[in-house]
Amino acid sequence: MMVLQKTIELQPRKRGFHLITTEITRAIEGDMNIKTGICHVFIKHTSASLTINENADSTVRKDFETYFTKAVKENDPDFLHDTEGPDDMPAHIKSSLLGSSVSIPVSNGRLALGMWQGIYLCEHRNYGGSRDIVITVIGE
Amino acid sequence: MMVLQKTIELQPRKRGFHLITTEITRAIEGDMNIKTGICHVFIKHTSASLTINENADSTVRKDFETYFTKAVKENDPDFLHDTEGPDDMPAHIKSSLLGSSVSIPVSNGRLALGMWQGIYLCEHRNYGGSRDIVITVIGE
Amino acid sequence: MMVLQKTIELQPRKRGFHLITTEITRAIEGDMNIKTGICHVFIKHTSASLTINENADSTVRKDFETYFTKAVKENDPDFLHDTEGPDDMPAHIKSSLLGSSVSIPVSNGRLALGMWQGIYLCEHRNYGGSRDIVITVIGE
Repeated sequence: MMVLQKTIELQPRKRGFHLITTEITRAIEGDMNIKTGICHVFIKHTSASLTINENADSTVRKDFETYFTKAVKENDPDFLHDTEGPDDMPAHIKSSLLGSSVSIPVSNGRLALGMWQGIYLCEHRNYGGSRDIVITVIGE
Repeated sequence: MMVLQKTIELQPRKRGFHLITTEITRAIEGDMNIKTGICHVFIKHTSASLTINENADSTVRKDFETYFTKAVKENDPDFLHDTEGPDDMPAHIKSSLLGSSVSIPVSNGRLALGMWQGIYLCEHRNYGGSRDIVITVIGE
Repeated sequence: MMVLQKTIELQPRKRGFHLITTEITRAIEGDMNIKTGICHVFIKHTSASLTINENADSTVRKDFETYFTKAVKENDPDFLHDTEGPDDMPAHIKSSLLGSSVSIPVSNGRLALGMWQGIYLCEHRNYGGSRDIVITVIGE
Protein backbone atom coordinates (compact mmCIF):
# COMPACT_ATOMS: atom_id res chain seq x y z
CA MET A 1 0.00 0.00 0.00
CA MET A 2 1.30 3.39 -1.00
CA VAL A 3 0.36 7.06 -1.19
CA LEU A 4 1.40 9.39 -3.98
CA GLN A 5 0.65 13.10 -3.57
CA LYS A 6 1.37 15.93 -5.98
CA THR A 7 0.43 19.60 -6.00
CA ILE A 8 0.11 21.37 -9.33
CA GLU A 9 -0.81 24.89 -10.34
CA LEU A 10 -3.20 25.27 -13.24
CA GLN A 11 -2.62 28.33 -15.39
CA PRO A 12 -5.43 30.92 -15.38
CA ARG A 13 -8.41 29.96 -17.54
CA LYS A 14 -11.24 32.15 -18.66
CA ARG A 15 -14.63 31.69 -17.01
CA GLY A 16 -16.17 28.43 -18.15
CA PHE A 17 -15.55 24.71 -18.19
CA HIS A 18 -12.18 23.30 -19.27
CA LEU A 19 -10.85 19.77 -19.80
CA ILE A 20 -7.81 19.12 -17.58
CA THR A 21 -7.53 15.31 -17.75
CA THR A 22 -4.15 15.42 -19.46
CA GLU A 23 -2.72 17.84 -16.89
CA ILE A 24 -3.82 15.54 -14.07
CA THR A 25 -2.50 12.33 -15.61
CA ARG A 26 0.82 13.93 -16.60
CA ALA A 27 1.37 15.12 -13.03
CA ILE A 28 1.28 11.59 -11.62
CA GLU A 29 2.30 9.19 -14.38
CA GLY A 30 6.05 9.48 -13.87
CA ASP A 31 5.85 8.36 -10.23
CA MET A 32 2.84 6.09 -10.47
CA ASN A 33 3.60 2.72 -8.90
CA ILE A 34 0.03 2.14 -7.80
CA LYS A 35 -1.87 -0.44 -9.84
CA THR A 36 -5.20 -0.51 -7.99
CA GLY A 37 -6.70 2.19 -5.82
CA ILE A 38 -8.32 5.61 -5.77
CA CYS A 39 -7.15 8.93 -7.24
CA HIS A 40 -8.49 12.00 -5.42
CA VAL A 41 -8.22 15.39 -7.14
CA PHE A 42 -8.89 18.46 -4.96
CA ILE A 43 -9.09 22.18 -5.74
CA LYS A 44 -7.98 24.54 -2.97
CA HIS A 45 -10.41 27.34 -3.89
CA THR A 46 -14.03 28.28 -3.22
CA SER A 47 -14.96 29.93 -6.52
CA ALA A 48 -13.81 27.21 -8.89
CA SER A 49 -14.66 23.52 -8.80
CA LEU A 50 -14.03 20.12 -10.36
CA THR A 51 -16.39 17.71 -12.07
CA ILE A 52 -16.33 14.76 -14.45
CA ASN A 53 -18.23 14.95 -17.73
CA GLU A 54 -18.16 14.47 -21.50
CA ASN A 55 -14.67 14.70 -22.97
CA ALA A 56 -15.33 14.92 -26.73
CA ASP A 57 -17.69 17.66 -27.85
CA SER A 58 -16.68 21.17 -26.74
CA THR A 59 -20.30 22.36 -27.04
CA VAL A 60 -21.09 20.35 -23.90
CA ARG A 61 -18.70 22.55 -21.95
CA LYS A 62 -20.23 25.69 -23.45
CA ASP A 63 -23.71 24.48 -22.50
CA PHE A 64 -22.49 23.91 -18.93
CA GLU A 65 -21.55 27.59 -18.76
CA THR A 66 -24.92 28.57 -20.27
CA TYR A 67 -26.83 26.46 -17.76
CA PHE A 68 -24.97 27.53 -14.63
CA THR A 69 -25.06 31.22 -15.56
CA LYS A 70 -28.84 30.99 -15.74
CA ALA A 71 -29.29 28.69 -12.73
CA VAL A 72 -27.28 30.84 -10.32
CA LYS A 73 -28.08 34.42 -11.25
CA GLU A 74 -25.76 37.35 -10.69
CA ASN A 75 -26.99 40.49 -8.95
CA ASP A 76 -29.61 38.71 -6.86
CA PRO A 77 -30.85 41.62 -4.68
CA ASP A 78 -31.17 39.20 -1.74
CA PHE A 79 -27.44 38.38 -1.70
CA LEU A 80 -25.49 40.07 1.10
CA HIS A 81 -21.97 39.08 -0.03
CA ASP A 82 -21.50 41.39 -3.02
CA THR A 83 -18.35 43.44 -2.40
CA GLU A 84 -16.15 41.27 -4.62
CA GLY A 85 -18.29 41.73 -7.72
CA PRO A 86 -21.47 40.22 -9.15
CA ASP A 87 -19.72 36.99 -10.21
CA ASP A 88 -18.36 36.23 -6.73
CA MET A 89 -21.31 34.90 -4.71
CA PRO A 90 -22.65 32.87 -7.67
CA ALA A 91 -19.13 31.42 -8.01
CA HIS A 92 -19.24 30.19 -4.41
CA ILE A 93 -22.62 28.53 -4.95
CA LYS A 94 -21.63 26.91 -8.25
CA SER A 95 -18.49 25.58 -6.56
CA SER A 96 -20.54 23.75 -3.96
CA LEU A 97 -23.11 22.50 -6.48
CA LEU A 98 -20.30 20.88 -8.47
CA GLY A 99 -17.89 20.13 -5.65
CA SER A 100 -14.27 20.73 -4.70
CA SER A 101 -13.03 17.25 -5.54
CA VAL A 102 -13.47 14.26 -7.81
CA SER A 103 -12.40 10.70 -7.01
CA ILE A 104 -11.59 8.20 -9.74
CA PRO A 105 -10.73 4.51 -9.47
CA VAL A 106 -7.23 3.43 -10.48
CA SER A 107 -7.06 0.10 -12.35
CA ASN A 108 -4.00 -1.40 -14.03
CA GLY A 109 -2.03 1.68 -13.05
CA ARG A 110 -4.30 4.11 -14.88
CA LEU A 111 -7.33 6.28 -14.14
CA ALA A 112 -10.34 4.05 -14.85
CA LEU A 113 -12.40 6.75 -16.50
CA GLY A 114 -15.19 5.75 -18.86
CA MET A 115 -14.57 6.21 -22.57
CA TRP A 116 -16.38 9.56 -22.65
CA GLN A 117 -15.33 10.88 -19.26
CA GLY A 118 -12.90 13.73 -18.69
CA ILE A 119 -12.02 15.92 -15.71
CA TYR A 120 -13.28 19.51 -15.91
CA LEU A 121 -11.91 22.57 -14.21
CA CYS A 122 -14.99 24.72 -13.62
CA GLU A 123 -13.84 28.35 -13.47
CA HIS A 124 -16.66 30.44 -12.07
CA ARG A 125 -14.90 33.79 -11.71
CA ASN A 126 -14.48 36.27 -14.55
CA TYR A 127 -10.80 36.60 -13.63
CA GLY A 128 -10.01 33.63 -11.42
CA GLY A 129 -6.24 33.47 -11.72
CA SER A 130 -4.18 30.31 -11.32
CA ARG A 131 -5.68 27.40 -9.37
CA ASP A 132 -3.93 25.00 -7.00
CA ILE A 133 -4.78 21.33 -7.26
CA VAL A 134 -3.74 18.50 -4.92
CA ILE A 135 -3.71 15.00 -6.39
CA THR A 136 -3.58 12.07 -3.95
CA VAL A 137 -3.46 8.44 -5.09
CA ILE A 138 -3.83 5.63 -2.54
CA GLY A 139 -3.56 1.95 -3.38
CA GLU A 140 -1.22 -0.91 -4.04
CA MET B 1 -4.00 -2.37 4.51
CA MET B 2 -5.78 -3.78 1.51
CA VAL B 3 -7.60 -2.78 -1.66
CA LEU B 4 -10.63 -4.58 -3.05
CA GLN B 5 -11.89 -3.56 -6.50
CA LYS B 6 -14.87 -4.92 -8.43
CA THR B 7 -16.56 -3.85 -11.64
CA ILE B 8 -20.25 -4.59 -12.10
CA GLU B 9 -22.72 -3.88 -14.85
CA LEU B 10 -26.11 -2.59 -13.82
CA GLN B 11 -28.97 -3.70 -16.02
CA PRO B 12 -30.77 -0.93 -17.94
CA ARG B 13 -33.17 1.09 -15.80
CA LYS B 14 -35.80 3.48 -16.98
CA ARG B 15 -35.19 7.20 -16.56
CA GLY B 16 -35.43 8.11 -12.89
CA PHE B 17 -33.88 7.34 -9.52
CA HIS B 18 -33.29 3.73 -8.42
CA LEU B 19 -32.05 2.13 -5.19
CA ILE B 20 -28.96 -0.01 -5.86
CA THR B 21 -27.59 -0.50 -2.33
CA THR B 22 -28.13 -4.26 -2.44
CA GLU B 23 -26.36 -4.62 -5.78
CA ILE B 24 -23.34 -2.75 -4.43
CA THR B 25 -23.09 -4.67 -1.16
CA ARG B 26 -23.59 -8.04 -2.86
CA ALA B 27 -20.75 -7.31 -5.26
CA ILE B 28 -18.20 -6.92 -2.47
CA GLU B 29 -19.42 -8.93 0.52
CA GLY B 30 -17.98 -12.28 -0.57
CA ASP B 31 -14.42 -10.91 -0.74
CA MET B 32 -14.67 -8.28 1.95
CA ASN B 33 -11.79 -8.64 4.41
CA ILE B 34 -11.66 -4.92 5.17
CA LYS B 35 -13.04 -3.94 8.58
CA THR B 36 -12.35 -0.19 8.58
CA GLY B 37 -11.91 2.07 5.59
CA ILE B 38 -13.64 3.78 2.70
CA CYS B 39 -15.82 2.35 -0.09
CA HIS B 40 -15.79 4.36 -3.31
CA VAL B 41 -18.50 3.70 -5.92
CA PHE B 42 -17.94 5.21 -9.37
CA ILE B 43 -20.09 5.30 -12.51
CA LYS B 44 -18.21 5.30 -15.84
CA HIS B 45 -20.77 7.43 -17.69
CA THR B 46 -21.62 11.10 -18.20
CA SER B 47 -25.41 10.95 -18.45
CA ALA B 48 -26.13 8.93 -15.31
CA SER B 49 -24.91 9.59 -11.78
CA LEU B 50 -24.82 8.31 -8.21
CA THR B 51 -26.10 9.84 -4.99
CA ILE B 52 -27.08 8.84 -1.46
CA ASN B 53 -30.58 9.54 -0.21
CA GLU B 54 -33.68 8.18 1.52
CA ASN B 55 -34.03 4.42 1.22
CA ALA B 56 -37.59 3.80 2.39
CA ASP B 57 -40.31 5.77 0.64
CA SER B 58 -40.36 5.37 -3.14
CA THR B 59 -42.15 8.73 -3.53
CA VAL B 60 -38.86 10.43 -2.60
CA ARG B 61 -37.27 8.94 -5.71
CA LYS B 62 -40.23 10.03 -7.84
CA ASP B 63 -39.96 13.56 -6.46
CA PHE B 64 -36.26 13.60 -7.36
CA GLU B 65 -37.21 12.95 -10.98
CA THR B 66 -39.91 15.63 -10.79
CA TYR B 67 -37.46 18.18 -9.37
CA PHE B 68 -34.58 17.54 -11.76
CA THR B 69 -36.80 17.47 -14.85
CA LYS B 70 -37.99 20.97 -13.92
CA ALA B 71 -34.61 22.29 -12.75
CA VAL B 72 -32.72 21.30 -15.91
CA LYS B 73 -35.12 21.92 -18.76
CA GLU B 74 -35.06 20.06 -22.05
CA ASN B 75 -35.06 21.95 -25.34
CA ASP B 76 -33.34 25.03 -23.97
CA PRO B 77 -32.88 27.06 -27.18
CA ASP B 78 -29.49 28.24 -25.89
CA PHE B 79 -28.05 24.72 -25.79
CA LEU B 80 -25.64 23.89 -28.64
CA HIS B 81 -25.24 20.15 -27.94
CA ASP B 82 -28.59 18.82 -29.12
CA THR B 83 -27.91 16.17 -31.77
CA GLU B 84 -28.40 13.24 -29.37
CA GLY B 85 -31.91 14.23 -28.37
CA PRO B 86 -33.51 16.68 -25.95
CA ASP B 87 -32.71 14.53 -22.91
CA ASP B 88 -28.97 14.38 -23.61
CA MET B 89 -27.56 17.76 -22.60
CA PRO B 90 -29.79 17.94 -19.48
CA ALA B 91 -28.51 14.44 -18.60
CA HIS B 92 -24.91 15.69 -18.67
CA ILE B 93 -25.76 18.61 -16.39
CA LYS B 94 -27.75 16.48 -13.93
CA SER B 95 -24.84 14.04 -13.80
CA SER B 96 -22.47 16.75 -12.66
CA LEU B 97 -24.97 18.26 -10.21
CA LEU B 98 -25.28 14.89 -8.50
CA GLY B 99 -21.81 13.51 -9.18
CA SER B 100 -20.14 10.46 -10.65
CA SER B 101 -19.20 8.84 -7.36
CA VAL B 102 -20.20 8.34 -3.75
CA SER B 103 -17.84 7.45 -0.91
CA ILE B 104 -19.06 5.65 2.19
CA PRO B 105 -17.16 4.75 5.37
CA VAL B 106 -16.63 1.06 6.12
CA SER B 107 -16.97 0.13 9.81
CA ASN B 108 -16.98 -3.40 11.25
CA GLY B 109 -16.70 -4.79 7.74
CA ARG B 110 -19.89 -3.13 6.48
CA LEU B 111 -20.94 0.08 4.76
CA ALA B 112 -21.61 2.55 7.57
CA LEU B 113 -24.68 4.08 5.98
CA GLY B 114 -27.18 5.87 8.19
CA MET B 115 -30.45 4.04 8.93
CA TRP B 116 -32.32 5.89 6.16
CA GLN B 117 -29.53 6.11 3.60
CA GLY B 118 -29.38 4.16 0.36
CA ILE B 119 -27.33 4.43 -2.83
CA TYR B 120 -29.23 5.72 -5.87
CA LEU B 121 -28.50 5.14 -9.52
CA CYS B 122 -29.70 8.36 -11.18
CA GLU B 123 -30.58 7.49 -14.79
CA HIS B 124 -30.98 10.72 -16.73
CA ARG B 125 -31.42 9.34 -20.27
CA ASN B 126 -34.73 8.11 -21.64
CA TYR B 127 -32.95 4.97 -22.88
CA GLY B 128 -29.66 4.83 -21.05
CA GLY B 129 -28.75 1.18 -21.42
CA SER B 130 -26.61 -0.77 -18.97
CA ARG B 131 -24.24 1.14 -16.70
CA ASP B 132 -20.73 0.16 -15.58
CA ILE B 133 -19.83 0.70 -11.94
CA VAL B 134 -16.40 0.37 -10.31
CA ILE B 135 -16.36 -0.31 -6.57
CA THR B 136 -13.07 0.24 -4.71
CA VAL B 137 -12.66 -0.44 -0.98
CA ILE B 138 -9.48 0.63 0.80
CA GLY B 139 -8.74 -0.07 4.45
CA GLU B 140 -7.58 -2.65 6.95
CA MET C 1 -0.32 2.80 5.83
CA MET C 2 -2.96 3.39 8.46
CA VAL C 3 -6.64 4.07 8.93
CA LEU C 4 -8.08 6.36 11.58
CA GLN C 5 -11.85 6.44 12.02
CA LYS C 6 -13.89 8.54 14.44
CA THR C 7 -17.62 9.10 14.84
CA ILE C 8 -18.82 12.38 16.30
CA GLU C 9 -22.24 13.82 17.01
CA LEU C 10 -22.81 17.43 16.02
CA GLN C 11 -25.16 19.34 18.30
CA PRO C 12 -28.43 20.51 16.69
CA ARG C 13 -28.02 23.58 14.51
CA LYS C 14 -30.73 25.78 13.11
CA ARG C 15 -31.57 25.53 9.44
CA GLY C 16 -28.77 27.00 7.38
CA PHE C 17 -25.07 26.65 6.69
CA HIS C 18 -22.57 26.30 9.54
CA LEU C 19 -18.78 26.13 9.72
CA ILE C 20 -17.64 22.89 11.40
CA THR C 21 -13.95 22.77 10.43
CA THR C 22 -12.78 23.07 14.02
CA GLU C 23 -15.04 20.25 15.21
CA ILE C 24 -13.68 17.96 12.50
CA THR C 25 -10.03 18.74 13.10
CA ARG C 26 -10.39 18.47 16.90
CA ALA C 27 -11.94 15.02 16.56
CA ILE C 28 -8.89 13.59 14.83
CA GLU C 29 -5.87 15.65 15.85
CA GLY C 30 -5.13 13.77 19.08
CA ASP C 31 -4.75 10.42 17.28
CA MET C 32 -3.46 11.68 13.97
CA ASN C 33 -0.31 9.77 12.98
CA ILE C 34 -1.01 10.08 9.26
CA LYS C 35 1.21 12.56 7.43
CA THR C 36 -0.01 12.10 3.84
CA GLY C 37 -3.36 10.79 2.68
CA ILE C 38 -7.07 11.54 2.40
CA CYS C 39 -9.60 12.59 5.04
CA HIS C 40 -13.19 11.56 4.27
CA VAL C 41 -16.02 13.21 6.22
CA PHE C 42 -19.45 11.60 5.92
CA ILE C 43 -22.89 12.57 7.27
CA LYS C 44 -25.25 9.69 8.07
CA HIS C 45 -28.43 11.59 7.18
CA THR C 46 -30.51 12.39 4.10
CA SER C 47 -31.78 15.86 4.96
CA ALA C 48 -28.47 17.50 5.88
CA SER C 49 -25.27 17.57 3.87
CA LEU C 50 -21.63 18.62 3.81
CA THR C 51 -19.76 20.96 1.52
CA ILE C 52 -16.57 23.02 1.40
CA ASN C 53 -16.75 26.76 0.90
CA GLU C 54 -15.64 30.21 2.08
CA ASN C 55 -14.58 30.25 5.72
CA ALA C 56 -14.36 33.97 6.50
CA ASP C 57 -17.43 36.04 5.74
CA SER C 58 -20.62 34.81 7.41
CA THR C 59 -22.75 36.51 4.74
CA VAL C 60 -21.62 33.80 2.30
CA ARG C 61 -23.32 31.19 4.48
CA LYS C 62 -26.48 33.31 4.69
CA ASP C 63 -26.52 33.69 0.91
CA PHE C 64 -26.22 29.92 0.55
CA GLU C 65 -29.45 29.55 2.56
CA THR C 66 -31.08 32.29 0.45
CA TYR C 67 -30.09 30.58 -2.79
CA PHE C 68 -31.09 27.04 -1.86
CA THR C 69 -34.42 28.10 -0.38
CA LYS C 70 -35.28 29.69 -3.72
CA ALA C 71 -33.77 26.96 -5.92
CA VAL C 72 -35.62 24.09 -4.25
CA LYS C 73 -39.04 25.43 -3.43
CA GLU C 74 -41.24 24.18 -0.61
CA ASN C 75 -44.83 23.16 -1.23
CA ASP C 76 -44.29 22.14 -4.85
CA PRO C 77 -47.74 20.73 -5.70
CA ASP C 78 -46.06 18.03 -7.80
CA PHE C 79 -44.21 16.54 -4.81
CA LEU C 80 -45.69 13.29 -3.49
CA HIS C 81 -43.53 12.96 -0.35
CA ASP C 82 -45.08 15.64 1.86
CA THR C 83 -46.17 13.98 5.11
CA GLU C 84 -43.11 15.10 7.08
CA GLY C 85 -43.65 18.81 6.42
CA PRO C 86 -42.92 21.24 3.59
CA ASP C 87 -39.20 21.42 4.42
CA ASP C 88 -38.67 17.64 4.17
CA MET C 89 -38.63 16.83 0.44
CA PRO C 90 -36.61 19.98 -0.41
CA ALA C 91 -34.15 18.90 2.31
CA HIS C 92 -33.63 15.55 0.58
CA ILE C 93 -32.97 17.25 -2.77
CA LYS C 94 -30.60 19.85 -1.30
CA SER C 95 -28.71 17.04 0.43
CA SER C 96 -28.04 15.32 -2.88
CA LEU C 97 -27.18 18.56 -4.69
CA LEU C 98 -24.50 19.27 -2.10
CA GLY C 99 -23.56 15.70 -1.18
CA SER C 100 -23.22 13.49 1.87
CA SER C 101 -19.44 13.64 2.08
CA VAL C 102 -16.37 15.76 1.49
CA SER C 103 -12.84 14.44 0.96
CA ILE C 104 -9.79 16.54 1.75
CA PRO C 105 -6.11 15.79 1.18
CA VAL C 106 -3.90 15.36 4.24
CA SER C 107 -0.40 16.87 3.90
CA ASN C 108 2.20 17.21 6.66
CA GLY C 109 -0.28 15.68 9.09
CA ARG C 110 -2.94 18.35 8.54
CA LEU C 111 -6.00 18.91 6.34
CA ALA C 112 -4.66 20.59 3.19
CA LEU C 113 -7.54 23.04 2.85
CA GLY C 114 -7.02 26.21 0.87
CA MET C 115 -6.62 29.44 2.82
CA TRP C 116 -10.29 30.35 2.38
CA GLN C 117 -11.82 26.88 2.60
CA GLY C 118 -13.88 25.57 5.49
CA ILE C 119 -16.18 22.59 5.99
CA TYR C 120 -19.89 23.43 6.15
CA LEU C 121 -22.67 21.48 7.81
CA CYS C 122 -25.69 22.21 5.61
CA GLU C 123 -28.78 21.79 7.79
CA HIS C 124 -31.81 21.66 5.53
CA ARG C 125 -34.53 20.83 8.08
CA ASN C 126 -36.26 23.42 10.25
CA TYR C 127 -35.64 21.17 13.29
CA GLY C 128 -33.01 18.68 12.23
CA GLY C 129 -31.69 17.53 15.59
CA SER C 130 -28.17 16.26 16.19
CA ARG C 131 -26.20 14.87 13.25
CA ASP C 132 -23.82 11.90 13.18
CA ILE C 133 -20.57 12.30 11.28
CA VAL C 134 -18.00 9.60 10.46
CA ILE C 135 -14.44 10.79 9.80
CA THR C 136 -12.05 8.35 8.10
CA VAL C 137 -8.42 9.18 7.38
CA ILE C 138 -6.30 6.83 5.24
CA GLY C 139 -2.62 7.34 4.52
CA GLU C 140 0.87 6.93 5.84
